Amino acid sequence: MQYICKKNRMTNLIVGTVAFDAIETPYGKTDKIVGGAATYISLSASFFTDKLNLVSVVGGDFPDSAIKMLQNHNVDTSGLQIKKNEKTFFWSGRYHNNMNSRDTIETQLNVLETFDPIVPKEFSESEFLMLGNLVPSVQQKVLDQMTKRPKLIVLDTMNFWMDNCWDDLIEALKNVDVLTINDEEAQQLSGEHSLVKAAKKIRTMGPKYLIIKKGEHGALLFGNNKIFSAPALPLEKVFDPTGAGDSFAGGFIGYLSNQIEISFDKMKTAVIYGSVMASFCVEKFGTERLTEITKQDVLERAQKFIDLSSFDI
Amino acid sequence: MQYICKKNRMTNLIVGTVAFDAIETPYGKTDKIVGGAATYISLSASFFTDKLNLVSVVGGDFPDSAIKMLQNHNVDTSGLQIKKNEKTFFWSGRYHNNMNSRDTIETQLNVLETFDPIVPKEFSESEFLMLGNLVPSVQQKVLDQMTKRPKLIVLDTMNFWMDNCWDDLIEALKNVDVLTINDEEAQQLSGEHSLVKAAKKIRTMGPKYLIIKKGEHGALLFGNNKIFSAPALPLEKVFDPTGAGDSFAGGFIGYLSNQIEISFDKMKTAVIYGSVMASFCVEKFGTERLTEITKQDVLERAQKFIDLSSFDI
Repeated sequence: MQYICKKNRMTNLIVGTVAFDAIETPYGKTDKIVGGAATYISLSASFFTDKLNLVSVVGGDFPDSAIKMLQNHNVDTSGLQIKKNEKTFFWSGRYHNNMNSRDTIETQLNVLETFDPIVPKEFSESEFLMLGNLVPSVQQKVLDQMTKRPKLIVLDTMNFWMDNCWDDLIEALKNVDVLTINDEEAQQLSGEHSLVKAAKKIRTMGPKYLIIKKGEHGALLFGNNKIFSAPALPLEKVFDPTGAGDSFAGGFIGYLSNQIEISFDKMKTAVIYGSVMASFCVEKFGTERLTEITKQDVLERAQKFIDLSSFDI
Repeated sequence: MQYICKKNRMTNLIVGTVAFDAIETPYGKTDKIVGGAATYISLSASFFTDKLNLVSVVGGDFPDSAIKMLQNHNVDTSGLQIKKNEKTFFWSGRYHNNMNSRDTIETQLNVLETFDPIVPKEFSESEFLMLGNLVPSVQQKVLDQMTKRPKLIVLDTMNFWMDNCWDDLIEALKNVDVLTINDEEAQQLSGEHSLVKAAKKIRTMGPKYLIIKKGEHGALLFGNNKIFSAPALPLEKVFDPTGAGDSFAGGFIGYLSNQIEISFDKMKTAVIYGSVMASFCVEKFGTERLTEITKQDVLERAQKFIDLSSFDI
């Protein structure tokens, strides 16, 4: 599969939650801070492209400063619905000592409960579509509003939707180019323990490419009868894993949307840049690290991934 | 650290169990078959070097044909004690469906109970020493018999010895260049959850290099203030994981012993060849796969590791 485009002219439509989080890790806890899948995806993608369109919803309690912050990161927020008399989606959770598991303390759906995504006309021909983790039927509603088939559709989902909205998820998957899930979710979705077998099965369900995120063990990209294994950067301290998967997705689609062509080789590089962004994300609470790093930091960290994984035989 | 040597003149001393195993996996079960750490290490190393010296012990029940098989793989078995009136070490186990855990059904120490390793004089100046997983005090006895400090000492161990022979293990570690353990063992040995912190601590205990084996997630090499992350080959089916770690060690030390110099870069390649050998080992029961593959198969699989993990930024 190769898509040809004119460099730097591709627009990204990013759909997902914009939210408040309250996070507790072994290293500390936060009050309500700005989070949500679309926030992390947008911030992360903004290091690679300035064509970012957001579709999401917040309540009247969402601060203008946070919207301004997104705009300062190249995000067109004209698709961000603001429900003046409602409250923003809120999640609070506590990570366990090993950082691999967490308990949800509280979930207030608030504006998400009735979220009806509206894709502004000027966004409906976006060439790249990133469907962040959301109810599959909402992801489908966005797909239905695209007046032109995007060149690349990436969908992120989670076990919760497999448990509760199986049919809708299977329906949405049919329209997708790239699916990003973790290893346990790949096993649940396919019913296969072996990730190689799981990938084969999932790739018959719609997605031509599958990315399996394995946290500290890196990520696997399956497609074109090839497999790419990306390392994770070994870190002394994972401060807060929240948003790591979304930062990965943002780096992945942001990098690709800025390429002349999309090939398996380009996807490999995109997986590395996704991993780079995830490795920054976990270094501080919430989006803090993503808002303080520079493009130079991103390039230097990508070089670390080369040092980490290159060898001769 | 760089060791200079004349190509192909380095001898390896391999110490470890030569045993009978009976294995049950979701794919089938075996009767008593030949196994043991030193068997896997030797067979695996034999693809890289013809200078292999074995120190181990078996009982009178151990078949001549198996000793012949080792000799046919370049192994000098003059250090293999044969206790005519005793029985060979026997282990039987059953792997669970996910292949990541197993139950030991039976362990008969037999000849191992009183194993007093004797290093033949002509082995005592071997340049490479591989101490396979064994009681730490037995590993130490071998170290004490080396009349010349080997150029490289690699030690493999496991959680059992950390639980039961902590002091002896710590003592043996002081003399070691490379330690190979899995991630949980690295955490146990160091008391650190982060593998980066664990490696730092373990490298103050003796080993200049640490290899953390992560099974299907690959391996990490720490040393010289550098980290190398090696992928594992994604497999449709892991038939029998027995001996994978030992096959890794054999490929690692076998490759290094045949190099002009030992550098961090050479160690990276050695980790890849270790991973190559492990990926073959798990494809069939016991040592079966290691005895049927060719050097060409090994080279072709090493190329697969390049395809799997190379990328441009």
